Amino acid sequence: MIKLLTFLLLLIGAIEIAEGRIRHYKWDVKYEYKSPDCVKKLAITINGRSPGPTILAQQGDTIIVELTNSLGMENLAIHWHGIRQIGTPWSDGTEGVTQCPILPGDTFSYRFVVDRPGTYMYHAHYGMQRQAGLYGSIRVSVPDGVSEPFAYDYDRSIILNDWYHKSTYEQAAGLSSDPFVWVGEPQSLLIQGKGRFNCSKLTTLNLEPGVCNATNPECSPYTLTVVPGKTYRLRLTSITALSALSFQIEGHNMTVVEADGHYVEPFTVKNIFIYSGETYSILVKAEQDPSRNYWMTTSVVSRNSTTPPGLAHFNYYPNHPQRSPPTDPPAGPLWDAVEPRLAQSLAIKARQGYIYPPPATSDRIIVFLNTQNKIDGYTRWSVNNVSFTLPETPYLIALKESRGNAQHLFDQKPPPEGYNFTSYDIYSVANNTNATKSDSIYRLKFNTTVDIILQNANTLTNNNSETHPWHLHGHDFWVLGYGEGKFDINSDPARYNLVDPIMKNTVPVHRYGWTALRFVADNPGAWAFHCHIESHLYMGMGVVFEEGIEKVGKLPSQNMGCGITKGFWKP
Amino acid sequence: MIKLLTFLLLLIGAIEIAEGRIRHYKWDVKYEYKSPDCVKKLAITINGRSPGPTILAQQGDTIIVELTNSLGMENLAIHWHGIRQIGTPWSDGTEGVTQCPILPGDTFSYRFVVDRPGTYMYHAHYGMQRQAGLYGSIRVSVPDGVSEPFAYDYDRSIILNDWYHKSTYEQAAGLSSDPFVWVGEPQSLLIQGKGRFNCSKLTTLNLEPGVCNATNPECSPYTLTVVPGKTYRLRLTSITALSALSFQIEGHNMTVVEADGHYVEPFTVKNIFIYSGETYSILVKAEQDPSRNYWMTTSVVSRNSTTPPGLAHFNYYPNHPQRSPPTDPPAGPLWDAVEPRLAQSLAIKARQGYIYPPPATSDRIIVFLNTQNKIDGYTRWSVNNVSFTLPETPYLIALKESRGNAQHLFDQKPPPEGYNFTSYDIYSVANNTNATKSDSIYRLKFNTTVDIILQNANTLTNNNSETHPWHLHGHDFWVLGYGEGKFDINSDPARYNLVDPIMKNTVPVHRYGWTALRFVADNPGAWAFHCHIESHLYMGMGVVFEEGIEKVGKLPSQNMGCGITKGFWKP
Repeated sequence: MIKLLTFLLLLIGAIEIAEGRIRHYKWDVKYEYKSPDCVKKLAITINGRSPGPTILAQQGDTIIVELTNSLGMENLAIHWHGIRQIGTPWSDGTEGVTQCPILPGDTFSYRFVVDRPGTYMYHAHYGMQRQAGLYGSIRVSVPDGVSEPFAYDYDRSIILNDWYHKSTYEQAAGLSSDPFVWVGEPQSLLIQGKGRFNCSKLTTLNLEPGVCNATNPECSPYTLTVVPGKTYRLRLTSITALSALSFQIEGHNMTVVEADGHYVEPFTVKNIFIYSGETYSILVKAEQDPSRNYWMTTSVVSRNSTTPPGLAHFNYYPNHPQRSPPTDPPAGPLWDAVEPRLAQSLAIKARQGYIYPPPATSDRIIVFLNTQNKIDGYTRWSVNNVSFTLPETPYLIALKESRGNAQHLFDQKPPPEGYNFTSYDIYSVANNTNATKSDSIYRLKFNTTVDIILQNANTLTNNNSETHPWHLHGHDFWVLGYGEGKFDINSDPARYNLVDPIMKNTVPVHRYGWTALRFVADNPGAWAFHCHIESHLYMGMGVVFEEGIEKVGKLPSQNMGCGITKGFWKP
Repeated sequence: MIKLLTFLLLLIGAIEIAEGRIRHYKWDVKYEYKSPDCVKKLAITINGRSPGPTILAQQGDTIIVELTNSLGMENLAIHWHGIRQIGTPWSDGTEGVTQCPILPGDTFSYRFVVDRPGTYMYHAHYGMQRQAGLYGSIRVSVPDGVSEPFAYDYDRSIILNDWYHKSTYEQAAGLSSDPFVWVGEPQSLLIQGKGRFNCSKLTTLNLEPGVCNATNPECSPYTLTVVPGKTYRLRLTSITALSALSFQIEGHNMTVVEADGHYVEPFTVKNIFIYSGETYSILVKAEQDPSRNYWMTTSVVSRNSTTPPGLAHFNYYPNHPQRSPPTDPPAGPLWDAVEPRLAQSLAIKARQGYIYPPPATSDRIIVFLNTQNKIDGYTRWSVNNVSFTLPETPYLIALKESRGNAQHLFDQKPPPEGYNFTSYDIYSVANNTNATKSDSIYRLKFNTTVDIILQNANTLTNNNSETHPWHLHGHDFWVLGYGEGKFDINSDPARYNLVDPIMKNTVPVHRYGWTALRFVADNPGAWAFHCHIESHLYMGMGVVFEEGIEKVGKLPSQNMGCGITKGFWKP
């Protein structure tokens, strides 16, 4: 039955690819002053907007985004997060992995097929550019004639973010200096690009009058207008730089039905936890007293944050959209309660009838110990004591075009498959906090099954372990399990869910815990796998996988211009 | 006699080139917090410093600067201002003209010969990057055994600048927006990288405490310590973003002896006017009352500026260097008095015995009308109603490597050789303020003599004309004359100084006036000629010359990576 369904789904997919429409976007990317939280700041916009335009498409459509870099002196790359880029690994938009950066003045065409319905996102994937405001939603609908396993009246995208007042250059300068200057907690949380900084908190004003202007319409609360009695599918996306969030709608339950493009066996909650890089669809029925509005809120969890909650209006028509709810915004969950977050992680399973069963066994197991380290006095994040750096020539180019002659382009020594499981104490600051930097990568045998165990540990601070949302490019993985403490290769795999595991592209690793994933290395290309916290990736918390590079087609010249590709392009 | 001298000088030059030393620098360029005027701001530093290290060399030396771009997401290019780059046009460092930008993470080697003694500078030549702090001095001494035509005891470089608190991204965003947001007057003037913003002027403080800190040693006044009775050669360099300056030393006369690497027939002044891109050597004797210190000051001329004077200490040893002079700083000249500035321009002539006579006639005359215009609602600067833009493929690459097949790489239509001399009223806002954008260039016949007349006019504001310092890359030019009003091709050339004109690489065009230049197109390459005001060039005030492109040697691959050079480099 499942096999038949898979076959049918594949068939539908094939038909759609044949019939898919081309959706052509022209985007101009530049710096403009914006006041998303009432504080005026230079933000990166797409066609004047941050968040950028929502991409609306149907399964099988071909998306073409013709992107012009008008940032002046700053390069650019955009990643289409959750889109697997089957057959188009050069369109993944990961600077240093799949392409050279897009130069100021240049126009770059991303072209790819959205081969699965679901909720995805796009965002800058270059330095810490994402948190300057370059992000947006992707919503892919099912083909005509195909129905989804749940019903709703309206479909809405809501993208959640956190927001800093300092520029990415200021933040990066602190992170890469000795002594280390941490970016700190964000100043605001944004809901669909709108937040509200308390201007009176600027006890002292900035150089310019009007830098904080509470009456600026750009920072009026985001409003979702609902018709009483109707059911809304809300496609939640978190693109936060740092924060793990809880999202809730005052007085309303929400039923989780989709995660990262996969149907979830429905479960109902008062609030949903969402980590940077994740998407969820929730169903909400407008069934409360319609004479008033309600709060939609986001609040920070897993960090003892100073960032105030994000607020928006769940507006019952025909009340005025900007009428404040008569109640105080509901409090979010306790920031340090891990149990409810772990419980939600465990609750997310594939929906009956939509289960893609994982291979029963894997060909390779790699354990990734996540640690904070010191390298030459600088603070870095590492995986198995290796802190990731990018080479001058992106891997896809180096591997595909050097024809086995890439030795000089990046470190050829394979990175470690694990750490010292017996002696390492994940509950303490490491005895030796040193690590090394490397641009070496994991080469995967094509079509093999790989297990990844993400192991969390104590940071450089006593009694502290952070939550890391890890995101895999080019694939979905099965989430086989979560656990507390140190992963035990002898006993923990017996607890894996091989029956109905959800497939995702981003997954949290809870503090002092582990998360086990399985994926099939069946997508020719070079793919990043990294913590989705912008500053953590910047500080080295990631790896790259290669598989089937010999099957990759000819790379477009627009991906080149760096490393070994500074020469004349011969068609 | 002059011919013999020229021959001897050439001979000495040839010997020096043969014997020249290699001076190898390794520079790391990054963003760091600096407080040059007591206000903390992200600045671009070289090896941690802004201004960067002074390059000290001897005529004939080969300079190698190995430059690593650690700016994160921002590209880079450095121009060696005043160095003609004979035989090395690819080392001129002009992004879009002679090279592709240097990518973050890349290392680029500039290599060139300093073939003439004198005072030069280096600075970023990419977007508006220069005014983020990326600049420094170059001082080239005469060969051993050669003496200069004046005597001094000590030799010092002093680089003058103006300073903004906003980032280059913020400034550029305003300049390229509609409505136009002008960058405004700089907040401070810096002398050798140090200024002093009045913290109490921040009536309101910034978000962060300590943003303005008057006790920060980074902004203690620059001090030039002098020994009573000794004569100092001060090599003054102006790298201002906007401001024309007057420099003076309280109670001391100064004798001008060098300009842009050429000996000047000495003349003595109380204050010297210096425009962005110019260098002067002045001789100052420490012959005043040695029991006290004196002020060195810069002040803005030609604009009704709000920028307070720059202050430094002329410190008589053994007084304490930081002891303030007992007097008020001397007032600068009236900002709007054109006459003294024109008089100084006219006073600068080649030194007897060091005259390079210009060719008696020219082969081509090009008149450049400087105007402020509107294009599609945006404010731009233009030359003959053409506002300059850069192509994707730098000219040097496009011209040299396309082998006559560069048609598609930039506009092939020659730009205009002049404007409507009879009908254009330079004293009024133009009737039609429209202009067009173009990346077309002036192709010069190799070894011909070219006259350039720079004609100033009214801006978009009634009764306003601005001073523009124009800088030529790859050549020195003879300054044949200056005049007020509209240049008259029939009568004004008769007034040219063909006897002892100074050679320079940067020259002011005074308001409502003209400046006439002559140069020989004998340096194979592609060379920018532009207003040295950073925002004016950004807004299109420049042109490019090409000459002898077929004589240019093989371009290094490091210059490539943009436009048509995004392909594999084949050695």
